[in-house]
Amino acid sequence: MLSQTLVNVAMGRKPAGLVIKNGVWVCVQTGEIIPRTDIAIADGHIAYVGENADHAIGKNTQVIDAAGRYLVPGLLDGHMHVESGMVTVTEFVRAVAPRGTTGMFIDPHEIANVFGLKGVKLMVDEAARQPIHVWVQMPSCVPSAPGLETPGASISPADVAEAMTWPGIIGLGEMMNFPGVVAADEKMHAEMHSTRHAGKTIGGHYPTPDLGLAFHGYAAGGPEDDHEGTRAQDAIARARQGMKPMLRYGSAWHDVAAQVKAVTNHHVDPRHFILCTDDSHAATLAYEGHMDRVLRHAISEGLPPMTAIQMATLNTAEHFGLSREIGLIAPGRWGDVLLVRDLKDFHADLVIAKGRLIAQDGQWKQELPAYPYPDWVRHSVKLKRALTADDFKIKVSLTPNPSPDGRGAGVRANVIGVIENQAPTRHLRLELTPENGEIRSSLFTRHASPDIAKVALVERHHATGGVQVALVSGFGLKARCAIATTVAHDSHHMIIVGTDEDCMAQAANRLAETGGGQVVVKDGEIIGEVGLPIAGLMSDEHVETVARQAETVLAGVAACGSKLNSPNMQMALLGLVVIPELRISDKGLVDVTKFEFVPVIE
Amino acid sequence: MLSQTLVNVAMGRKPAGLVIKNGVWVCVQTGEIIPRTDIAIADGHIAYVGENADHAIGKNTQVIDAAGRYLVPGLLDGHMHVESGMVTVTEFVRAVAPRGTTGMFIDPHEIANVFGLKGVKLMVDEAARQPIHVWVQMPSCVPSAPGLETPGASISPADVAEAMTWPGIIGLGEMMNFPGVVAADEKMHAEMHSTRHAGKTIGGHYPTPDLGLAFHGYAAGGPEDDHEGTRAQDAIARARQGMKPMLRYGSAWHDVAAQVKAVTNHHVDPRHFILCTDDSHAATLAYEGHMDRVLRHAISEGLPPMTAIQMATLNTAEHFGLSREIGLIAPGRWGDVLLVRDLKDFHADLVIAKGRLIAQDGQWKQELPAYPYPDWVRHSVKLKRALTADDFKIKVSLTPNPSPDGRGAGVRANVIGVIENQAPTRHLRLELTPENGEIRSSLFTRHASPDIAKVALVERHHATGGVQVALVSGFGLKARCAIATTVAHDSHHMIIVGTDEDCMAQAANRLAETGGGQVVVKDGEIIGEVGLPIAGLMSDEHVETVARQAETVLAGVAACGSKLNSPNMQMALLGLVVIPELRISDKGLVDVTKFEFVPVIE
Repeated sequence: MLSQTLVNVAMGRKPAGLVIKNGVWVCVQTGEIIPRTDIAIADGHIAYVGENADHAIGKNTQVIDAAGRYLVPGLLDGHMHVESGMVTVTEFVRAVAPRGTTGMFIDPHEIANVFGLKGVKLMVDEAARQPIHVWVQMPSCVPSAPGLETPGASISPADVAEAMTWPGIIGLGEMMNFPGVVAADEKMHAEMHSTRHAGKTIGGHYPTPDLGLAFHGYAAGGPEDDHEGTRAQDAIARARQGMKPMLRYGSAWHDVAAQVKAVTNHHVDPRHFILCTDDSHAATLAYEGHMDRVLRHAISEGLPPMTAIQMATLNTAEHFGLSREIGLIAPGRWGDVLLVRDLKDFHADLVIAKGRLIAQDGQWKQELPAYPYPDWVRHSVKLKRALTADDFKIKVSLTPNPSPDGRGAGVRANVIGVIENQAPTRHLRLELTPENGEIRSSLFTRHASPDIAKVALVERHHATGGVQVALVSGFGLKARCAIATTVAHDSHHMIIVGTDEDCMAQAANRLAETGGGQVVVKDGEIIGEVGLPIAGLMSDEHVETVARQAETVLAGVAACGSKLNSPNMQMALLGLVVIPELRISDKGLVDVTKFEFVPVIE
Repeated sequence: MLSQTLVNVAMGRKPAGLVIKNGVWVCVQTGEIIPRTDIAIADGHIAYVGENADHAIGKNTQVIDAAGRYLVPGLLDGHMHVESGMVTVTEFVRAVAPRGTTGMFIDPHEIANVFGLKGVKLMVDEAARQPIHVWVQMPSCVPSAPGLETPGASISPADVAEAMTWPGIIGLGEMMNFPGVVAADEKMHAEMHSTRHAGKTIGGHYPTPDLGLAFHGYAAGGPEDDHEGTRAQDAIARARQGMKPMLRYGSAWHDVAAQVKAVTNHHVDPRHFILCTDDSHAATLAYEGHMDRVLRHAISEGLPPMTAIQMATLNTAEHFGLSREIGLIAPGRWGDVLLVRDLKDFHADLVIAKGRLIAQDGQWKQELPAYPYPDWVRHSVKLKRALTADDFKIKVSLTPNPSPDGRGAGVRANVIGVIENQAPTRHLRLELTPENGEIRSSLFTRHASPDIAKVALVERHHATGGVQVALVSGFGLKARCAIATTVAHDSHHMIIVGTDEDCMAQAANRLAETGGGQVVVKDGEIIGEVGLPIAGLMSDEHVETVARQAETVLAGVAACGSKLNSPNMQMALLGLVVIPELRISDKGLVDVTKFEFVPVIE
């Protein structure tokens, strides 16, 4: 038994596999910094932590001299989506483990929308093969908006109950359907019930600033954490209600600075606070970091390094019931140890995970096994036939109203208004002039104003041939162009924004050909592209390659005239029919304030 | 589902069963004291905690006005033995719940030595019927000293594996066989392995001051807590090694004052510190209290009240993976709430457990269900036949050595030397003079010195007829008398200490007749007695009755001339063949420094 081995190594009866000498122990369990500490590791686990591990050194023991550097437990990301990095689990690990991340709690919500339970199983399987710990949260809300959209697959309470029996499943992924929780919806509560029954953790997601009865109702329903708080009072309210505030510092969501004030200004006990990233883009991972980046930021915002490190190690482990396994440097736990020179400017010199030195100075010291994806996962973009410009027409069957001043005749259109750097959209009501019985995209480029493009949602999961075409304002496109993406939250059909129907058809057909990704077509030429052939969401290329490809997409969109900060992200959210005000789904245009369909042309 | 009910109550759609108005929330999860707090409880669980629960009050809702008193989570005892109170689980609960204890983690180690797994099952069953939470730790070390004693039954790794499937079992009871853990003993590690595999908590027990390799080996072996530390450095060492220091304040063991200095002086993070009682006698429970007493003491030793309360609520719940259930006042948790006027002079005015007002001002507000003990549990004292004075003879078959000075002839005897107020004994080697080929007890009362009595261990589990007779020094008995007990750690045979063989036989036969307990016979008359008919360990009388009966035993022993502080406890430990130096078992006299049998007369 493992415990016998650990005792024998601790007692000097058996040699350790790895001994770290002369470190400074960041003892998160006591809050102490303890100099002159050695660690002995055997069978992947810590056998001894104390003043002198010489007795555990045998002739085959690897000995690392910490030379007075800090010994920090491997960092944990309390909630995140691998798909946001546009890479596979393996490539995500390749990017973040050398930065010091040795444990991740991933919610494969995106692939679940494409492939359902079998997509989740795939992620669980890939997760289990990693040299670091990757636990999977079972997606809870697929589809996100039942009745308003058709994802590739859906998740039922029975699926959740089944997944809870899988060893790699640590709990339920963010319970986004907060109106369902608060309305005592049977399906949502059944999912939470089977999670609780399995002794696993229910993830939360409560994105409104309302801390009144709805918030209390949500807390009473069972979610045990929440990463959607943005203010100090949000963090405090969650902690009081027995939830764990997860402070998020992703690529786009920066919610740590405001919420750490709960600790630094309001002196709330930080034991239940957890740090996470939620969504990190490939470029962030490639150039800035992962949980090390979060730590540097949290510390720069005033958290004592010990407190910040506890929020990225022990607190996270305890939340998921894993503090016997990870989250602290102590006997019996996995040998996940970082060597760090400076706790404030936090960078991992060496990363030891599961007892093995896996990375040094940011470089891998071992090979990562390639995950053998099955063929079906690369064929998720299923169109009934190749699309043509005709598929992107908006016909006007109504007689146009003569305009009051007699200068022309217009129709009233419902248009999605993009708000830069924000997830919500506006519901614009604009008067447009049809030409030959249709709203032609060529109209839009002729005039500086209104800034309108077509947006199409192409069904891609079941080859139904369905195409919904509507209008969007705010991209500022000035060329004959189209941008297409198969990353299209949450049901991940294909979304195309464009000013020219031929370009739109070309972009759509290109993604069907490559298996998915994002592509920019200008004047009939592909000028930017990132390939995401796995489920249309992920690449199995290195994160830096993906980051560079993603940059060609951004450069391409800019070349088409858009000045938006993150046009591809804004596009990817146009189908998110859970956030107000107006969105497009495979079923039509949705007024998300009323959860009703509305026509493009009134 | 419960969660739906809680949401509906929190939202005001359903009335609560109980609402507490206008309290001051001791919010252990944030460390805050929050005024003007209401709590709504439904189906035994907290549905709402916040500023105003008026919306949850219906016409049948019981409303309690806290009138500004503190709202404190029900107190938890992290490790204890019900049997130490000499009462049943039900009577223990009757005594402690009105004091504010709403959760106990009990290790039925004593009854396990008498009845094995079926005794444990009985306790689990009785525990499940209580109006408070009683979780059972599966005893790990029965017998305590394999090969040196024969208990009534033993516990195997297979028994442990089976018990881990029972819902009422929360983990493994204190792993006392620390030499076994450190020696990588197969049986001990198998028990810990099946506990770990079941996701439950391994209790520890490391009673030596050695913080060297043996301590490191013990920590590496798997025990997750320890209540045997006595010094601040013990608490710190355990916390560093990832174990939870359990600070014990029982009737006899006072280990809180020294160890809280780890927090008050050394500023160690207290999140992993836990308070417990381990052993509380009936009189302590009846007259002083339970966890409320521990809190008052811990606070008087300098702990901030919030920290002390966290150590008796949240920290304990988190240790056992129960913080979704108990240990804090928050939605979804059991409605275990105390109303308290003064956090320093801690007394519970009202006790609400599982959502019901169970006690007010120390008085029960509801009936406790009587537990229907099966008949066999009252027949644990099984003698082959009635004993006579002859059974208590010590024959000297050797020829006495002539003494060097020619004044007489003596034999060399191995005598147990009692040390007042301590568990260890001394191994005395004394020269005694036989009379007619035996060591007669009448000898001892004739002389002021040496202070010697006979000690007999009578086999009582399997009616083997076995009687071991030896000698003990330190009781100071001056009359013709005998004291007998069926509480005789850990194998709980019957131990009799006496100066007169007839009195010894009478005392033994009395306990066989009553089913067990403790009795004092002086000059042929019973002058003190407590009846413990359940397993020979527990009474089903009220704790105050038992305390009064126990006082008659102490008074009786004093009347026999003993000035020992706790003569009945010292007696009860004479068979504890795991603590040095000399003990008696059903197999003979044991040298516990060498784990060898030694003869009474050399």
